[in-house]
Amino acid sequence: MKEKNAMVAVLMGSTSDAPVLEKCFSVIKSFDVPYEVRVLSAHRTPAETAEFIEEAERAGVEVFVAAAGMAAHLAGAVAAHTTRPVIGIPVASGPLNGQDALFSTVMMPPGVPVATVGINGGANAGHLAVQILALSHPELRDRLVKARSDMREGVLEKDRAFPRS
Amino acid sequence: MKEKNAMVAVLMGSTSDAPVLEKCFSVIKSFDVPYEVRVLSAHRTPAETAEFIEEAERAGVEVFVAAAGMAAHLAGAVAAHTTRPVIGIPVASGPLNGQDALFSTVMMPPGVPVATVGINGGANAGHLAVQILALSHPELRDRLVKARSDMREGVLEKDRAFPRS
Amino acid sequence: MKEKNAMVAVLMGSTSDAPVLEKCFSVIKSFDVPYEVRVLSAHRTPAETAEFIEEAERAGVEVFVAAAGMAAHLAGAVAAHTTRPVIGIPVASGPLNGQDALFSTVMMPPGVPVATVGINGGANAGHLAVQILALSHPELRDRLVKARSDMREGVLEKDRAFPRS
Amino acid sequence: MKEKNAMVAVLMGSTSDAPVLEKCFSVIKSFDVPYEVRVLSAHRTPAETAEFIEEAERAGVEVFVAAAGMAAHLAGAVAAHTTRPVIGIPVASGPLNGQDALFSTVMMPPGVPVATVGINGGANAGHLAVQILALSHPELRDRLVKARSDMREGVLEKDRAFPRS
Amino acid sequence: MKEKNAMVAVLMGSTSDAPVLEKCFSVIKSFDVPYEVRVLSAHRTPAETAEFIEEAERAGVEVFVAAAGMAAHLAGAVAAHTTRPVIGIPVASGPLNGQDALFSTVMMPPGVPVATVGINGGANAGHLAVQILALSHPELRDRLVKARSDMREGVLEKDRAFPRS
Amino acid sequence: MKEKNAMVAVLMGSTSDAPVLEKCFSVIKSFDVPYEVRVLSAHRTPAETAEFIEEAERAGVEVFVAAAGMAAHLAGAVAAHTTRPVIGIPVASGPLNGQDALFSTVMMPPGVPVATVGINGGANAGHLAVQILALSHPELRDRLVKARSDMREGVLEKDRAFPRS
Amino acid sequence: MKEKNAMVAVLMGSTSDAPVLEKCFSVIKSFDVPYEVRVLSAHRTPAETAEFIEEAERAGVEVFVAAAGMAAHLAGAVAAHTTRPVIGIPVASGPLNGQDALFSTVMMPPGVPVATVGINGGANAGHLAVQILALSHPELRDRLVKARSDMREGVLEKDRAFPRS
Amino acid sequence: MKEKNAMVAVLMGSTSDAPVLEKCFSVIKSFDVPYEVRVLSAHRTPAETAEFIEEAERAGVEVFVAAAGMAAHLAGAVAAHTTRPVIGIPVASGPLNGQDALFSTVMMPPGVPVATVGINGGANAGHLAVQILALSHPELRDRLVKARSDMREGVLEKDRAFPRS
Repeated sequence: MKEKNAMVAVLMGSTSDAPVLEKCFSVIKSFDVPYEVRVLSAHRTPAETAEFIEEAERAGVEVFVAAAGMAAHLAGAVAAHTTRPVIGIPVASGPLNGQDALFSTVMMPPGVPVATVGINGGANAGHLAVQILALSHPELRDRLVKARSDMREGVLEKDRAFPRS
Repeated sequence: MKEKNAMVAVLMGSTSDAPVLEKCFSVIKSFDVPYEVRVLSAHRTPAETAEFIEEAERAGVEVFVAAAGMAAHLAGAVAAHTTRPVIGIPVASGPLNGQDALFSTVMMPPGVPVATVGINGGANAGHLAVQILALSHPELRDRLVKARSDMREGVLEKDRAFPRS
Repeated sequence: MKEKNAMVAVLMGSTSDAPVLEKCFSVIKSFDVPYEVRVLSAHRTPAETAEFIEEAERAGVEVFVAAAGMAAHLAGAVAAHTTRPVIGIPVASGPLNGQDALFSTVMMPPGVPVATVGINGGANAGHLAVQILALSHPELRDRLVKARSDMREGVLEKDRAFPRS
Repeated sequence: MKEKNAMVAVLMGSTSDAPVLEKCFSVIKSFDVPYEVRVLSAHRTPAETAEFIEEAERAGVEVFVAAAGMAAHLAGAVAAHTTRPVIGIPVASGPLNGQDALFSTVMMPPGVPVATVGINGGANAGHLAVQILALSHPELRDRLVKARSDMREGVLEKDRAFPRS
Repeated sequence: MKEKNAMVAVLMGSTSDAPVLEKCFSVIKSFDVPYEVRVLSAHRTPAETAEFIEEAERAGVEVFVAAAGMAAHLAGAVAAHTTRPVIGIPVASGPLNGQDALFSTVMMPPGVPVATVGINGGANAGHLAVQILALSHPELRDRLVKARSDMREGVLEKDRAFPRS
Repeated sequence: MKEKNAMVAVLMGSTSDAPVLEKCFSVIKSFDVPYEVRVLSAHRTPAETAEFIEEAERAGVEVFVAAAGMAAHLAGAVAAHTTRPVIGIPVASGPLNGQDALFSTVMMPPGVPVATVGINGGANAGHLAVQILALSHPELRDRLVKARSDMREGVLEKDRAFPRS
Repeated sequence: MKEKNAMVAVLMGSTSDAPVLEKCFSVIKSFDVPYEVRVLSAHRTPAETAEFIEEAERAGVEVFVAAAGMAAHLAGAVAAHTTRPVIGIPVASGPLNGQDALFSTVMMPPGVPVATVGINGGANAGHLAVQILALSHPELRDRLVKARSDMREGVLEKDRAFPRS
Repeated sequence: MKEKNAMVAVLMGSTSDAPVLEKCFSVIKSFDVPYEVRVLSAHRTPAETAEFIEEAERAGVEVFVAAAGMAAHLAGAVAAHTTRPVIGIPVASGPLNGQDALFSTVMMPPGVPVATVGINGGANAGHLAVQILALSHPELRDRLVKARSDMREGVLEKDRAFPRS
């Protein structure tokens, strides 16, 4: 763990999933939440993945985010090694367009949940991580309320700009 | 809010979704986490749903769980009214067997995430709620580790009992 | 409500849905039906959406049209706040190509129907709105019959132009 | 046309679709709206179907409802012969469980819309028909508002009866 | 009927389906089978479609081919008006990529079959039409056997040309 | 070939598909068309399947019908060995409920068509076989028209019996 | 490893998958191939799963078979820890009826293949395991040829028994 | 058989499937495993396909790989003619994007398995072939372990290069 204070650990199974995670990073950053990013594969580096999770937990990581495509096992593999909340992002890679990744991420067996967001839902993974952290980090609460209010304002602004007929 | 101390609020769109929630209730109870259950519909009682969420937040609810089938809007409607984590359970009711509810629950727009568990995933909704609460309620951490260890032991026991060939 | 006389209110959850609505607008315009367009989100501006619907009803709007993609809750949210007919257009945005939006729009619970047209069916939403209005605005009846007849003529013209073999 | 005053004409492609329509009938009846039921098939009685629609229009039918399963062409065939609103109910018959009927009913070409309700959505077809009629029959408006209020009360009653935890 | 001797009548619901039919035309032509092409819509020109089928039957058409996309009712509508074999080509138009058209074409009710070929299967519609005609036109039999043999030879030639390793 | 005069050869991959074929047999019988039934598997008896088809062709079989479930290759395997029309019935066996069999039957490569009927469409396979035979056996034409007329009468009878409201 | 000579190791994620494996066991037994069965979960006993695989490899296991339902990660988790062939059986448990398990099992990333058989394909997992073993255990070759011949004979017997018309 | 020593025979149904096989070839080559490639179609050259398989078996081919799209029967047709392991690659060609080919390849009847890899999974077909061969060709074992270790190193290298936050 380079970042001792990282509150969120973000894992991707392959750097080809990085574009989907860009929005996740920028959301987390916009809340000034320290995070750490790792490229680790459930199938190619299972031992390193397991080691990292234990290490990350000890170093204080509170929430894990994992993005993977196709037979997307990464989020489930992370969830198997921790009891901290694990957020899974199914990535639309390959011919099944993310439906495979959605099923592989969300249909977890009882006792090992993955908090799944939409296919390619990088931004929502970031928002959900911050929502979870805000329960024990009250300074994030206000920022979340502010962000929601900004979103609302953004819609209303577009509404005002759009021709009424 | 009858239960002042409820940490989890569980909403169902219809009492026909209650069986899926039974496992959620029993998981939450097994961790001695106080919770409150409400029957409220995104489409039939939108105002009461919105009011309840605000009231629940003020009363200290930290995590929401919402179960609904078909065009399952309930979790999303809850998420629209709070910035606390919202866990969505897609229920397999009707001829599409929960695929409609899964898509309706998980494919949320950026900024309003729903932490979706598997179709009919009542137990995992309970586990995920406790995992989230454990970040700020350290006494739950040990129980989660114990529960995971019990699960592991349960599998190993079945393994020992199963004929080797 | 800027347009006091609007008979149709068209809502979109995001301006990214505007292209699908262009055909809706042009159909409604071709029947000289006054309409009003709003950008309002079920999840980001739930209160404004509810307010607008009440206001619109009072101002005489007879039919609502709502377009949304992914976990498309907008049409259902509109239907929850009015007993006037609500037409839903599922929009093919995101990796599931509109199948998520179709299920989220059409599989409504009993008592809160959404009159759903095809995925990206902007033109048909306009036609359906006019068909509904024509029941109480007889001058629209003739125009509908004329439009149908023009469509028929359009096909026959293409038929005459196409090489027979 | 036996019922001169029928405001809604309900067609089913086969009497095997009748159970899905029972809820439609009981909703329409509960609003005291006169209706007429016919068993007519797009494929086995195309001429009679077309004749009936013209006759029904002349006799004052304002809204058509059509239920069919599998390659459900009936609603579309009705829509091809009238410019009045046509409500389509996809019926879950056969091994594809209504997904075939949903696609066959809702994906209509521009200019010939079918207002599609959910698979097996008999009740909502009835509600939608009444909502459409209420625009020109103001006495139905109050009943719709009352019905919505009753639904709301029904949910709240179940909520009060359900154990809070 | 311009072409008195047409043995195959090919219908398309829209000229946007013409590219899929090009391969159908070229197959039929390659067997020197006279055919006639018409642009007729199940929903926009139902009367003309019905009339044409009767006329075509009288003029000696033995096989019908119909291509349509989305809620593809055309082949079924043709089948409703004739007892001659009707070949249906589901066309991949729109966001559901032909799965809607396949279900709408193939899931016909008992007694009114549509001989369905694959999505966008223009060439196979032509081959199937010729196979059917060959039963009563023995000169086509030899050409079919020759065509099959040519196909076989084509594969073997590609096999010979492809690097063995 | 026991039945020298068989005009239709019906193949099933497994006797578990026999129930779906019962309706096919009864339709063919109702037209007094001689047929022969064989249990032959594309995967377990490929040589016997190929031999039978050649033998059947020589013995005068004009149309083949093949029913199979799951990775339903039987109709395609028959089509690979004949240029006579091959009708494929996808059977809903196994957990994918016939969608696998439909895709495996209908998506044939160019030049080797299978005339596919709906999932479990035994009756329509029979009707289609008779429609094809009627082109060269004019005595079947009248029976087909009569059968269609009976179907029509059957619907109208049910219509007369059904309560109008 | 109790069974020192086990050539096949069969893993199931849960004893609820045992019925699907019964056919696998009986096929393997019918070839007199020694095998060992274990109940081990990718998510509940990840460490024991990894340990077992290494131990099994050392003890001479040549082929692994893994059965799991829903987000079926077990076969992939096994494949991540060995370079011996891993056969995956997707099990149809839960509301998605095995489609989730199929996608989760088969869509593996490059370099870590799972040899996937059909949903609930226990028998074929056994046959495939024996086919693989037969390459280095020539005595199995004859038994495989014999088994195939028996299957062929079984079909032909049913064919002889089935009424020809 | 040109390549007497070929251990793997790779078949494609059409040269349009060649791009998917490129990765298969390069994986097999990287292990110095001799292989032979053939273009043979289950439907256009059924006899040549059957002949080749017998010939290949006699010449010492140990594993077959077959790639095909749409109603992908090739792998199954190969499996019907050999008891050696057959690896199937479903190819994403046509509008159903490989879901048709996956179902057609994997859902084989009991006794005739196809070891299916992911859609377009050319590389994994190669890896699986080598894994199977390694059981009887021990020199391949070390190379497989080395390749797995290289993959692991490749991920870790990307991990080191990726910005931590």
